[in-house]
This record gives sequence, structure tokens and C-alpha cells, in this order.
Amino acid sequence: MPDNIVKSVNGITSEIKEEVDRLIFSSLPTSHPVKEIQLLYDMMREYPSRTGKGLRPTLCVLFCQAFGGDRNLAIPTAAALELFQNWIVIHDDIEDQSELRRGKPALHQEHGIALAINAGDALAGRMWEMLLSNCKILDERVVLQLFSLFLEMLNRTTSGQHIELSWVENGRWDLNEEDYMNMCRNKTAYYTCVVPMVAGALIASYDGASKDNSERFGLNLGTAFQIRDDILNLVGDEAKYGKEILGDIFEGKRTLMVIHCLQHASDEDKQGFLSIMSKSRHKKSESDVYKIMEYFEKYGSIGYARNSANSLAKLAKKQFEEMTFPGSTEAVDNLRTLIDFMVNRER
Amino acid sequence: MPDNIVKSVNGITSEIKEEVDRLIFSSLPTSHPVKEIQLLYDMMREYPSRTGKGLRPTLCVLFCQAFGGDRNLAIPTAAALELFQNWIVIHDDIEDQSELRRGKPALHQEHGIALAINAGDALAGRMWEMLLSNCKILDERVVLQLFSLFLEMLNRTTSGQHIELSWVENGRWDLNEEDYMNMCRNKTAYYTCVVPMVAGALIASYDGASKDNSERFGLNLGTAFQIRDDILNLVGDEAKYGKEILGDIFEGKRTLMVIHCLQHASDEDKQGFLSIMSKSRHKKSESDVYKIMEYFEKYGSIGYARNSANSLAKLAKKQFEEMTFPGSTEAVDNLRTLIDFMVNRER
Repeated sequence: MPDNIVKSVNGITSEIKEEVDRLIFSSLPTSHPVKEIQLLYDMMREYPSRTGKGLRPTLCVLFCQAFGGDRNLAIPTAAALELFQNWIVIHDDIEDQSELRRGKPALHQEHGIALAINAGDALAGRMWEMLLSNCKILDERVVLQLFSLFLEMLNRTTSGQHIELSWVENGRWDLNEEDYMNMCRNKTAYYTCVVPMVAGALIASYDGASKDNSERFGLNLGTAFQIRDDILNLVGDEAKYGKEILGDIFEGKRTLMVIHCLQHASDEDKQGFLSIMSKSRHKKSESDVYKIMEYFEKYGSIGYARNSANSLAKLAKKQFEEMTFPGSTEAVDNLRTLIDFMVNRER
Repeated sequence: MPDNIVKSVNGITSEIKEEVDRLIFSSLPTSHPVKEIQLLYDMMREYPSRTGKGLRPTLCVLFCQAFGGDRNLAIPTAAALELFQNWIVIHDDIEDQSELRRGKPALHQEHGIALAINAGDALAGRMWEMLLSNCKILDERVVLQLFSLFLEMLNRTTSGQHIELSWVENGRWDLNEEDYMNMCRNKTAYYTCVVPMVAGALIASYDGASKDNSERFGLNLGTAFQIRDDILNLVGDEAKYGKEILGDIFEGKRTLMVIHCLQHASDEDKQGFLSIMSKSRHKKSESDVYKIMEYFEKYGSIGYARNSANSLAKLAKKQFEEMTFPGSTEAVDNLRTLIDFMVNRER
């Protein structure tokens, strides 16, 4: 990805991210005389303080402007989206036994599973509080609609996460591409793309968007984003990517590459592949993991996934261009740049 | 506790509990064509389907009536309280490494930690959804006040839980009675007694209650309730109690008995006591646990805790009698019976 696009994306996200972060940190509790509670507060602030990309809040604010709304009215909701991402990944990191998050140890690696689950729950409360603070600037009806939207987001995200976890739990390998896509749409795409867009429209009081069309756009874009994330997990630069490179193979995740490889491998290779992938995390050696990478190379699975992501991204971009934006054309232009970045990013 | 009181309590709770359960089960998702999601739905319904006592929803409905409100208007909030209890204990059971919940294996013992954390999050969403459904029957302003109250409840409960967990995590034994009481007020009393009462008042649109007085009543009653729970964990009948008897000793919980014993034991006994209590759960033998019970007996720690609970209960009852109830006198009578049960129960 050319440096100038990354720069221009940073230009778009940085201002919004800064404003959202300011709001988040002014709303999260800072200090408490009881030492234990001080630690809880520190834990709640830990992930938000590790700089993320701020994609979801930026999408929310830009969509609000593109639909003709006032960007300031979208900031608390954008902050609530960022808080969602932060608390849900505290729990996801435990569930997936992940080791790194944004370049540092996952919260439960530093403080144990018990305290981390609880800190995630506490942070979830702050997300709802942030959403509720909209009462000061938005119509009560809109606030209640945003609540419904966030609840649907939680339903979808936990459904998607449950599907992925139970595949690992139950040793399921007989999956097809549609199983994966359905999981992705729920686990990632809905909260990453659909909700920021629909929330932006609600805040702008814009009801001209066809629900079906815009949801399809968001699901396609978000799925392309997740596939890209899965690819980066294999071939990315850990310093940029911030998660453990090859961690998905250690975790035994059913990515598009895995499904493609299993569908195209010879019987012998399939057996070899599964004998490694089925091992639990701590029984996999580094050479096991490189062997899996060799299978991916042999069957062109990474290239296949890259093509899939590109097709979905192309479709999403077409659907985006078919939408009507009564608001800021600058916001629409910025959205275009951001969408390009999301499916071509290297971090 | 005499059988006739238990019967009369069952009479009070059963009708409300039945109505609340009906609402909960009609709102929770039942079936899904995707096998994995079906399991998620089953997991979400598991704890609600294990009959609890229904104390919190009953308190909420009775307080609403006592404050002059319509009982029917309190049912969804009572159901949301019951859902809170259910999702938070899914997470608590993982955090405390508990084995039993309501006489059956804890959810994570049956399905693993990962799926159980996620199911807890999904169920939390249904709690907020239930609370939001109040929009159909209550003024929007009241709905938003209930949201704030539930958010404060989540803050308090996670703070209390964090304090207790970090004592175990950090091997803290230098605790005094006030440390314990403060933890209890946050972890248990606020959501068990204060919130059901304040929610009842909000729904009844009753603003004649002094916030401080009624909160003090709820905190005292709830703390007495938790001390009673801790005592039952030692001397209760597992079949009635539904949790693992002596589990708190295995888990190394800092109960009032533990704090009392440490404060009164000879240096030698203190050392012996701590050498057992400091062991991790799986390193404690049954005879270790019985040795702890002997220390409790030697220093009268259980009797001391029983007296503390009784004093708090007496104080709470006095504070209850000082409150003004403009509504149903039958509800006030029923509350009296329930309060007696809560601090004298054997299950």
C-alpha cells in the first residue's frame, strides 16, 4: 500500500480519533483511594490507551456527515463503538487464548483471566453509559434506536464468536466457504461496518438509505476486512500488525485459507494438515506452523483468500457508489479512501 | 427456620417468579437452524432454567407496590434483574472457579471457559433488551433513569467482585472487617437489595423516599444476606443450598469468618491457618478444609459472623420500619416476611 494513502488515511482518522479518545478518557474513571479499585480502573484504561486504528469511530462520524448530519453529534456514539471494540476484545483475547493485543501482552496475560473478564464487564458498562450520554444532545427516540442497534450488534458479535469458538471446541473441519462467510459477517462485519454506518444515519436522522442495500455493503466490506486480517496474521509484519503473527494457526482458527486448503489438498496432505491443525495450541511447534504455511503455499490458499477479499471489496465499493449521500461530499471522499485502506491495509 | 415461614415466602415469591420466568423465556431465543447457534441459545437459557429463589425480582415488584405503583409495570424490570443475576454469575463462576450453581455443574464446567464467557456476554445483551422493552409501558424518562440505575449496579458489582478477586490474586490476608463490609456492599448488597428497591420506587414514580436512608437499609440487608450466604457455604445442606459446600474455603475467599479468625488466633494457629488457606484450590485436601473449620470453631468465628449478620439485619429492619410506604400494606407485610427470610434462610 503506497505511503501517501496511509498518510492520507492517518489524516482522516487522526482528528476524529483524538476527539473520541479525549471523550473516552474523560469518561473513564482515573483514580480511587482503594488500591484494588485503582487497579481495576487501570485495567479498564489499558486497551483504550493502546492506540488502535480508530476505523469504526471514523466510519461512524464520516457516515453521519455523508448523510447530512452534524459531526459533533456523532462523537459520543463513535466513542461508544470504540469502547465496544475494547471491551469485547478483552473477552475475545481470553476466549481465543491470544497473547498479544496492539503490540503488548493481552490483558489476561498480565492480570489473569478472572480479573480480565471482570474488567471487560466493567468497561462494557462504560460503553452503555457513553451511549446514554447521548440524551444530552440527541432526541430520546434516537437514543433508544441507538440502544437497539447496539444490542443487535452485541447479539451478532457474540453469535459469530460462538460459532468460531465451537468449531475449535468441537474439532469441526467439515466447513465450507459459506460457513466461514456467515461467521465473519456476524463476528466482524456487523460491528465493524454495518453499525458505524447505520448509527451515522440514525444520528443524521437520514432515512433515505435502503436498509438492505446499505447492510449488504457493510457486510461485504467487513468480511473483506476480516479476510484481510486473517491474511495479515500469516504474512504481516508483527510490529505493524500488533498481534501475534501466525497466532491463528496456533489457535487452530478456521480461516478461509484453511477451508480452501482442506478442500483442495490431496488426501495425504489433508491428513498431514489436520494432524497438525488439530493439536492444541501448546502442542504445536514452530516447525508445525511453518509446515501449515507450506501447505497454504502449495495449494495457493493465501492467493485464493486475497482474491476473495478483493472481489468482496470490489462489490462493496460498487454498492457504496450506488448509495445516495445528501450530506458532505468531502466526507464521502474520505469514506472512499478509508474503504480502500480497510481492504488493502498492512496493519 | 420454621416450615411455615418458608411456605409463606414461597407463596409470596412463586407467583411473581412465575410471571418473571414466563417473560424471560418468551424473550430469550429458543431455536436456530445453525447447530452452533442452537448451543449458544441453550447455554443462555441454562441458568435461568435452573430455578433460583427469585428474591430480587420479588423485592422489586413488592417495593413498587409498597411505593404505590402498579405491579404489572414492574415485571420487565424484575425480569431484567433476574437476567442480571444470571449473566453475572456465569462470569463469577469462571472467575471464582466454582463447580456448582444451583445444584448442577457451573456453565463453564460443562462447556469450557471460552463459550461460557461469550454466552454471559450474550445474555447481558438480553438483560438490556428487557430493560429497553419498558419503553412500551413506562415513560421514556423513567426508562432512561432505570438504565442509569442498572449501569451504577454494574459498576458497583464489578468493583466489589474485583476487590474480592484481587485479594485472592495478591495473597492479601491483612484485611479488617470494614474491608470485607465494603466489598460486600458493592459485590452483593447493591444489586441484591438497593437496586430492586430503588427500581421499584422509580417505576412507582415515588420520590418521597430519602435516598440515603433507603440506600443504607438496602446495604445493611444485603450485607447481612451475604454473610448468611458465607455461613451457609460452611454449614449448609448442599442439596438445599445448591452450591458446593465448603467451596469458599477451597477458593480461599476472605469471608468475615476468615478475617475474625485471623484477628483472634494465636500466632501459631494463624500460621497453620494461613499455610492451608494460601494453597491454591487444587492443592487443598479435604482434611485441610476440615482443619480450617476446626480453627473457626476454636475461635468462635462462625458464631461471630452469625451475630454480625443478625445485628445488620436488625438495623436494616429498623430502617425499613422508618420508611414511609404510601402504597399497598399487603406488599409491605410481604416485604417484612421476605426480609426475615433473607437473613435467616437455610438455602
